[in-house]
Amino acid sequence: MVLTDRVLMGPGPCNPYPEATAALGRPMLGHLDPEMIVVLDETCDRLRAVWQTANSLTLPVSGTGSAGMEAALVNTVGPGDVVVIGVNGLFGERMCDVARRCRAEVVRVEAPWGRALDPQALLDAHPAPKLIGLVHAETSTGVCNDVAAVAAGKGDALVLADCVTSLGGIPVDIDGWGVDVAYSGTQKCLGVAPGLAPFTMGPRAVERRIADPQSWYLDLGMIGDYTRGATRKYHHTAPVSMIFSLHAGLGAVLDEGLEGAWARHAECGAALQKGLQNMGLELWAEEGHRLPELTTVVVPDGVDDAMVRSGLLQRYGIEIGGGVGPWAGRIWRIGCMGHTARRRNVTLLLGALAELLGR
Amino acid sequence: MVLTDRVLMGPGPCNPYPEATAALGRPMLGHLDPEMIVVLDETCDRLRAVWQTANSLTLPVSGTGSAGMEAALVNTVGPGDVVVIGVNGLFGERMCDVARRCRAEVVRVEAPWGRALDPQALLDAHPAPKLIGLVHAETSTGVCNDVAAVAAGKGDALVLADCVTSLGGIPVDIDGWGVDVAYSGTQKCLGVAPGLAPFTMGPRAVERRIADPQSWYLDLGMIGDYTRGATRKYHHTAPVSMIFSLHAGLGAVLDEGLEGAWARHAECGAALQKGLQNMGLELWAEEGHRLPELTTVVVPDGVDDAMVRSGLLQRYGIEIGGGVGPWAGRIWRIGCMGHTARRRNVTLLLGALAELLGR
Repeated sequence: MVLTDRVLMGPGPCNPYPEATAALGRPMLGHLDPEMIVVLDETCDRLRAVWQTANSLTLPVSGTGSAGMEAALVNTVGPGDVVVIGVNGLFGERMCDVARRCRAEVVRVEAPWGRALDPQALLDAHPAPKLIGLVHAETSTGVCNDVAAVAAGKGDALVLADCVTSLGGIPVDIDGWGVDVAYSGTQKCLGVAPGLAPFTMGPRAVERRIADPQSWYLDLGMIGDYTRGATRKYHHTAPVSMIFSLHAGLGAVLDEGLEGAWARHAECGAALQKGLQNMGLELWAEEGHRLPELTTVVVPDGVDDAMVRSGLLQRYGIEIGGGVGPWAGRIWRIGCMGHTARRRNVTLLLGALAELLGR
Repeated sequence: MVLTDRVLMGPGPCNPYPEATAALGRPMLGHLDPEMIVVLDETCDRLRAVWQTANSLTLPVSGTGSAGMEAALVNTVGPGDVVVIGVNGLFGERMCDVARRCRAEVVRVEAPWGRALDPQALLDAHPAPKLIGLVHAETSTGVCNDVAAVAAGKGDALVLADCVTSLGGIPVDIDGWGVDVAYSGTQKCLGVAPGLAPFTMGPRAVERRIADPQSWYLDLGMIGDYTRGATRKYHHTAPVSMIFSLHAGLGAVLDEGLEGAWARHAECGAALQKGLQNMGLELWAEEGHRLPELTTVVVPDGVDDAMVRSGLLQRYGIEIGGGVGPWAGRIWRIGCMGHTARRRNVTLLLGALAELLGR
């Protein structure tokens, strides 16, 4: 069987760090093996470093980023709780849907897709919400929302930040900003295969935690009894190989240094965005709020979205993403995350696009 | 760094098939890549073969076995629904807990841990339950419950079977028995790393499915739109590497043939159980209901449970499991599953135990 090898420049997964891929093949250990507990503890410590937090309840949730979103909400909000959610893309919408299924009272604060949320509008939306939730890096639009400003003005509310496409790619400062709950995904700027959701919850949120959440699988009380403490209590069988891989991927990120990883993502994003504009293409996300790790660009008039994407895939083995929801067929989403965030990939993509578009 | 290599004879994970480990390192693909869709479709087809079902809604849930349990219950039962659950071990208890969090009315039918459930008692427990749930292979006790008998008498009820420790190790016949919903785990008799929950749901259950389940992540309506049909709709980013691995592990199982895999598990279990008895040890699970893939044995009087298990781990690199719940310290749980189910491992364990116990 011939295995296809892609350059993954869509909205995720990225190409994983070689260290992360190699670690998937580590010999299996039991989830309570003393050596596994060492790996797990180191993984949680590395997550604390990447999240910039001292939160004890910092761990990989055993599911993808959306499981992290659900873990965040089922453990913090219940029937009738008021939750303010910023919506300027697919993942803000998803947060509303998950909160609704927790039977929370959802107050939506919208901005058009492609534009940033107004932090003050989130803070003014309700006099006493239990939680204010927003997406830091909107994967559906390429927009960066100002989590720090919302956290700074949160008052008595908890702040929940979706950091799926931000963690490891742009600064995320959980303790410095005062974010109470956050989750991410492994397959974006952390450069690991999809499958786990890095997660952190601070003391204010732990204190107001739902004691008996509607999800057993995502009950952080019980999960925390496995990831912390002198006696590790079995909850569910940890996804051992994926934890090995996250451990190694975080090692690669921290060996480079957080600042180094952010700088690399920033440099690649800037080069990509400049190159696209030089080609006469129009960037879509609001200027001043553009993510370096995920660039959105308008499909030019007269160009067939699907034809270009399949040309990139078939002729060059490069994946980029299309638009979603109302923007399907109208924008492209070009990721440059994790191990993919290298100048050579930017150069390659710009060259391939120029050939395909005849520019 | 020196990587520790164990012989995994606990209650799971087992040692994965080499094919399954190798596939973890396949080059990453996007979750909507046409080649990924081929792998996903083949994986679902292979799952149908292993489950012995034609169910369209057959797929790997993106979480461990317990996520499969939760997916089964949140999609079939809601507030006030009557659910009869058989409880003769930890996983029956867990099923009650998950059903309670769905706000179902739970009717428990108990048997002592270590003994099998009475199928008739499950059928007689309530005149019109929506669902009858039971664990096929109780990982906490080594007991096999008679799923076929319960399914045969189910009447109008749905039958839910936990097949975490049975699928691939002993016969499971979803369509032949008339089981409506079932889930498993990858890390037991299927010989793959932990992280996915093979899942299947038949037409009777689909018809009575909860339209808007309390879990977004485990909403099978939306998940099914990604795993089936002409247009694949993004739900969450599939755990690509783990799906590669499951695809390969199922390939190994089907290349051997289901009957071959069952025979190998049966032969190893019989040899192990005979060897333990020859050593003067007492098997714990009820005779006639013993699983070949998971053997429970009484810790002999005067023998220190933890000392023997750590001796096996440290001197021989062999993991076996201790008892759980009320049986912690009183029994051992010895797994012989997936790739671990080889005569040489049985011989090794019996030899190591004989040396440690001085028998």
